[in-house]
Amino acid sequence: MSIDLRGVFPPVPTPFGEDGGIAYDRLAENLERWNRTDLSGYVVVGSTGECATLTEREKLQVWEVARKHITSDKRFIAGTGCESTRETIALTRQAASIGSDAALVVTPWYYKGAMKSRELVAHYTAVADVSSIPILLYTFPQCTGVVMEPAAVARLAEHPNIIGMKDSSEVMGTFAEYIRVTPPSFQLVVGSALTFYMALCLGARGGILALANVAPQECVEIYRLFIDGKHEEAKQLQLRLMPVANAIGPRFGIAGVKAAMALRGYYGGPPRAPLLPLEPDGIEALRLELNGAGLA
Amino acid sequence: MSIDLRGVFPPVPTPFGEDGGIAYDRLAENLERWNRTDLSGYVVVGSTGECATLTEREKLQVWEVARKHITSDKRFIAGTGCESTRETIALTRQAASIGSDAALVVTPWYYKGAMKSRELVAHYTAVADVSSIPILLYTFPQCTGVVMEPAAVARLAEHPNIIGMKDSSEVMGTFAEYIRVTPPSFQLVVGSALTFYMALCLGARGGILALANVAPQECVEIYRLFIDGKHEEAKQLQLRLMPVANAIGPRFGIAGVKAAMALRGYYGGPPRAPLLPLEPDGIEALRLELNGAGLA
Amino acid sequence: MSIDLRGVFPPVPTPFGEDGGIAYDRLAENLERWNRTDLSGYVVVGSTGECATLTEREKLQVWEVARKHITSDKRFIAGTGCESTRETIALTRQAASIGSDAALVVTPWYYKGAMKSRELVAHYTAVADVSSIPILLYTFPQCTGVVMEPAAVARLAEHPNIIGMKDSSEVMGTFAEYIRVTPPSFQLVVGSALTFYMALCLGARGGILALANVAPQECVEIYRLFIDGKHEEAKQLQLRLMPVANAIGPRFGIAGVKAAMALRGYYGGPPRAPLLPLEPDGIEALRLELNGAGLA
Amino acid sequence: MSIDLRGVFPPVPTPFGEDGGIAYDRLAENLERWNRTDLSGYVVVGSTGECATLTEREKLQVWEVARKHITSDKRFIAGTGCESTRETIALTRQAASIGSDAALVVTPWYYKGAMKSRELVAHYTAVADVSSIPILLYTFPQCTGVVMEPAAVARLAEHPNIIGMKDSSEVMGTFAEYIRVTPPSFQLVVGSALTFYMALCLGARGGILALANVAPQECVEIYRLFIDGKHEEAKQLQLRLMPVANAIGPRFGIAGVKAAMALRGYYGGPPRAPLLPLEPDGIEALRLELNGAGLA
Repeated sequence: MSIDLRGVFPPVPTPFGEDGGIAYDRLAENLERWNRTDLSGYVVVGSTGECATLTEREKLQVWEVARKHITSDKRFIAGTGCESTRETIALTRQAASIGSDAALVVTPWYYKGAMKSRELVAHYTAVADVSSIPILLYTFPQCTGVVMEPAAVARLAEHPNIIGMKDSSEVMGTFAEYIRVTPPSFQLVVGSALTFYMALCLGARGGILALANVAPQECVEIYRLFIDGKHEEAKQLQLRLMPVANAIGPRFGIAGVKAAMALRGYYGGPPRAPLLPLEPDGIEALRLELNGAGLA
Repeated sequence: MSIDLRGVFPPVPTPFGEDGGIAYDRLAENLERWNRTDLSGYVVVGSTGECATLTEREKLQVWEVARKHITSDKRFIAGTGCESTRETIALTRQAASIGSDAALVVTPWYYKGAMKSRELVAHYTAVADVSSIPILLYTFPQCTGVVMEPAAVARLAEHPNIIGMKDSSEVMGTFAEYIRVTPPSFQLVVGSALTFYMALCLGARGGILALANVAPQECVEIYRLFIDGKHEEAKQLQLRLMPVANAIGPRFGIAGVKAAMALRGYYGGPPRAPLLPLEPDGIEALRLELNGAGLA
Repeated sequence: MSIDLRGVFPPVPTPFGEDGGIAYDRLAENLERWNRTDLSGYVVVGSTGECATLTEREKLQVWEVARKHITSDKRFIAGTGCESTRETIALTRQAASIGSDAALVVTPWYYKGAMKSRELVAHYTAVADVSSIPILLYTFPQCTGVVMEPAAVARLAEHPNIIGMKDSSEVMGTFAEYIRVTPPSFQLVVGSALTFYMALCLGARGGILALANVAPQECVEIYRLFIDGKHEEAKQLQLRLMPVANAIGPRFGIAGVKAAMALRGYYGGPPRAPLLPLEPDGIEALRLELNGAGLA
Repeated sequence: MSIDLRGVFPPVPTPFGEDGGIAYDRLAENLERWNRTDLSGYVVVGSTGECATLTEREKLQVWEVARKHITSDKRFIAGTGCESTRETIALTRQAASIGSDAALVVTPWYYKGAMKSRELVAHYTAVADVSSIPILLYTFPQCTGVVMEPAAVARLAEHPNIIGMKDSSEVMGTFAEYIRVTPPSFQLVVGSALTFYMALCLGARGGILALANVAPQECVEIYRLFIDGKHEEAKQLQLRLMPVANAIGPRFGIAGVKAAMALRGYYGGPPRAPLLPLEPDGIEALRLELNGAGLA
């Protein structure tokens, strides 16, 4: 069993109300609006979805709402990676029972010094062995401090239930290595709009891009231009969007994604503490970048 | 309200059975044995206690058992730091209701890029404002990737319910800065046996030392020699223990702590996946280091 | 005045004899062999040329020999970056008087903590102001620990005598930023074969590639396939060569470049101390990688 | 043959005139003033002496002037570390012939990825084998990116002509390891005022401290208080001086050392480009720190 990862997927933010609770209706609204675009699907409860500060119960409820509001032409990928193997297994099972199409499993992160290939291979194998939905590896060194060795990825790619990998680092030499050491059926996707076009050139199936929350159709357009062999136009569009990708990524993070969504007419709202909302001068800087990229 | 942090506290490992569940009786046994030493108390469910892979329910049960088996002459510090401010608050309240004497709150870690002084001050203030037990800040950059600015620590030290801080980095220049910018009543403790003696020289009240699980009385002896002004002997004992501190720290981590405990007659047992037990050659290397340090 | 940086340039190693002195005749032999390929030119006395361990006098002699043996259809770029601005200026003047076509100036590296944009802009401006040959910026964080801000590059790109930049990091998001913030006339080249094809996709003019010492025609072929719009074939060739690029780069460094050259029929010889020649098992590993890439 | 490293040594800045040339008379003046203090000696042409941007000829002249103006009760250590083994050997011989008492040899730095224990042991052994003056190892990861393994230091400490080591990192756990694995006759000195007192506690013979250029007698006082067993007073003095040590170290670097010297009545002058002088607000910040530490 597999799912098709071609195209663009936003890792959707979890909307919070002013009381700090989840605003489930706002999530529904945002999804309904995105459903009218050409996005290929969604990642729900990923890093951008503030997975680290949601309780297990909240994650399940977010998935329930997402399942109800994601149309059948869009794929639904659940972020299920936890610090422990057993919790990751349990959560992946719950995501499957709620009806998600695949699970995206970030590497464990707190005990980063111990996350060698031996541990990572054992961890992902244990999860994939028992999961009824396909598993995607996920490496995001900026948050986890863990880099997966290409040899470990090659080994895990042999597992029939591990169908691909998301790489959110910008280190394209390593991404190329992942491409090289895995079979063509293994689906690599890139996790940063800063490297979307070049990853496509290398063989990425698509992208899971925070920018796609803010500018979904523009991200899809990069993908289509690439597929149509229009390299120059794909590159130019990527370059035009880069200041926004930078602003909602390395510079302002999740608070920036949410503020940019609000400026674009989606529900943004505050992040959950300890994350804090963008201050007014940050919002102003963001507005300028959106204008500059033609996303006013 | 405050508690006295002088002396040595082990961050006690959480014992697991072969089925991956918590072996509560083994925890009780270990505590009863440590109770007969001159340790000042315990940290329960800290980093070495595999806090990151315990469920909330498990943490409460571990604290219940700890409360029952920690004698009244020992202090009981609960590790309550979570990724979100709201979960940290809730867990700290539960630790208080179970009867712990203080809470040790590690900096949030997944969204490390966003953990600036503004966020950290807001986070710790929110926790300390509502906690009925005193709060200890805790910085452990090797796991969290977050370093606390001395200025942020100085500001938090003004909060009446923040009574101290554990610093587990080995960067003694920064530790000295923390000492310098906080009032004498603010209790700094060091989190690595590799820098115990030098931290005492700088004004640390004591140490929360993984090594104290393995060699409790020896760690207490370093403290006593220092208090008695026997600097040369304190230093010599610290140097003698360093190869073991290295082996159970940077080199083998939690798997090493547990293997060393087993070699010393405590219950060690396996860590929880994704952590894996030490392989036989690692155990052998550890045995040699214990022998070399006179801890056979 | 400018020079054309399209295509592939090897940063040529400086050959040493067994006595540690420079084997100038071996340099001539290697150049004569490379001259028969479709390389666009050479970088002489760059990082791979062990610039850091050559004396000023040796650099001048290497350039004299290079000037004599580089044919008129190939460009000659001299690596002239030194720790001080004044030595960089003096050396750049000497390279110009010997007849090099441009100077490649690496960022100063020892006082890395002080190399902010203010210092870098002043340094490169001072060099470019007085040089009679065009200047290329050069960022190589793996050796220097210095990263150039895109804003500083944008400002330096306005200088009429700064015509381009070599970026040897693999961080393609930053490379794309350099492309975005500089005018089309500013020539960006990539400094690692691990990211050659993706940099071309982004708009790189060409590459200065250690791999081109070992496999010059194959590197040129990647370039030509790209220019001809044969993206898939360009990518496949890049992937095929990556294990060799890794071996002579991150894994074995300059000792690896020299050993691989020897295996390919060039003169390799030992690096200069403190660098040491590859040990026999390293040479064997290298031979396997060359075989695997069809470079036997 | 050995020399005694007890006490405090400033790594003296090289004074430049406004034309960028060396102001030898200013060096003489500064030395004559320091000669009247209780400093144990000087390091001439070290990192703080801007060794990286001096020519070989300039280094020799600086040493000649230093030799003339250093009184016989002070030791004269020459910084002779270069990128290549052969230049390091040549320069060490010249330092010996000019009359320096020992050579301080920083690890090679540009090819940091290749500086493993094998290379470092070979490098230092080659230098020590032929030098007529004793050799001090020198590790300064903040500038070099190279960390020496304790095992390599232990092996080099067996060489009869390698008498000690300067460690400028603040990582006190590693410093303690160096102490532990070397014989008592091996003289470890610390290279940062931020960790002077704690290094003395661990067994450091003394310190080579940039702060000693600015506050020589105060640094000597820390040493004397420690020797007299006055731990509390030594610690308090170190803490008082820390803001200044931070300002002339991590914060403002060499430009800060020179500006602080000027504020204290020594000749400071500009650093050599690419380093730039402190801007007015930096000088003002420095003045405040000096005032705060009672060094007005």
